[in-house]
Amino acid sequence: MSTSTDYEHDPKSEQLTAPYLKLYSIGTPNGQKITIYLELLEKAYGLKYNYRKIDFANNEQKEPWFIKLNPNGKIPTISDVDANGKQTVIFETGAILQYLGETYDTENKYYYSLKNGDLYWDQVKWLTFQVASHAPYQGQANHFRIFAKEKIQYGIDRYTDETKRVFGVYEIRLKENNGWLVGDKLNIADIAAFPWIRNAAKIDIDLAEFPALKAWVDKIEKIDGIQEGLNV
Amino acid sequence: MSTSTDYEHDPKSEQLTAPYLKLYSIGTPNGQKITIYLELLEKAYGLKYNYRKIDFANNEQKEPWFIKLNPNGKIPTISDVDANGKQTVIFETGAILQYLGETYDTENKYYYSLKNGDLYWDQVKWLTFQVASHAPYQGQANHFRIFAKEKIQYGIDRYTDETKRVFGVYEIRLKENNGWLVGDKLNIADIAAFPWIRNAAKIDIDLAEFPALKAWVDKIEKIDGIQEGLNV
Repeated sequence: MSTSTDYEHDPKSEQLTAPYLKLYSIGTPNGQKITIYLELLEKAYGLKYNYRKIDFANNEQKEPWFIKLNPNGKIPTISDVDANGKQTVIFETGAILQYLGETYDTENKYYYSLKNGDLYWDQVKWLTFQVASHAPYQGQANHFRIFAKEKIQYGIDRYTDETKRVFGVYEIRLKENNGWLVGDKLNIADIAAFPWIRNAAKIDIDLAEFPALKAWVDKIEKIDGIQEGLNV
Repeated sequence: MSTSTDYEHDPKSEQLTAPYLKLYSIGTPNGQKITIYLELLEKAYGLKYNYRKIDFANNEQKEPWFIKLNPNGKIPTISDVDANGKQTVIFETGAILQYLGETYDTENKYYYSLKNGDLYWDQVKWLTFQVASHAPYQGQANHFRIFAKEKIQYGIDRYTDETKRVFGVYEIRLKENNGWLVGDKLNIADIAAFPWIRNAAKIDIDLAEFPALKAWVDKIEKIDGIQEGLNV
């Protein structure tokens, strides 16, 4: 039987025996998307996972062994090894959430599968919107406000304004769809958006301007498993 | 039978009778992703579509009737109306490509469906990488180089450098995977990346630095249907 060291080349790996699910991550909003879903899946189905914290301060995600898993050198990345030792590596949060849903959320608790028709496509739309049209811009707002070595007002304004515009899109959607992005319950599209939107204050956006979005954040924060997912 | 004017509220709509597939778009790289795939599907399966050019100069994509279709107010957006008049609206290029593949590419010519297992997940990974980790940053490089009213060197450098880094990720992938992003043929992940990568020179990136990527662009440009898709 293969062990993780055969596959992962991770110099700090715990000894793991197949089958196992391993998450390489850290507690950023993109990391929290995945730990939230994994904690919910653990409560719902007893799914276990191994959490491998990546050392950002030492740029561990750019080390050659990690680049073999994810050539983009980013977290989160999952490695799912089945009982025969066959490994599936998934990166990009949008892809990981879909993979976990399709593979492990077999009762469709937080995931609509293709057989759900319109709800599946709504989920793909809003999940893709989050990863492609929301997170990159809020991420750039964080960059220009917090991380950039020069203060560049143009960048601060451009990406804060764009993030506010995106929040307005969610606000329309939540009002039209009874308080959820898709269907009538928490699903992977909400799970993707939630860790970003709850950090609005970090870029000086007041969620009180978006009452439906604020109510949605407050509601999700109280769901069993969410706090565990935020604090892995 | 319903006609498009019942559904779309488009003041300039042609008279369309269900069933029909309508694309709201314009010839940007994001728009070209969809026209390329639709032209390939037309050649492969005889699929027809109605092309509705959106008037960017007059911000038509922000008009209330369009916001009803896509609250994000962006192209491309598709409206797929079946014979019973039931409408499915999809936005976000990553979602549209998956929808078209699942719905119309029934012989998996340019799309791997879930039954393809690993290839399906590779496709989801690389497609998501394109829409979430590539296009937003090359788009920002375009902004700071071409559209920004102030010249901000920090922005030019930041997003050009990130786009180059992303091109390096594709270069690794193409070398490891025999010249395609996924599997052994053109598929929706390549279709998403291609219109962006072929515009590298616009942000002063020389594709000669990425030989596998350059060979991939040259190869795709010669495939029957690609030029039609670029020039809709």
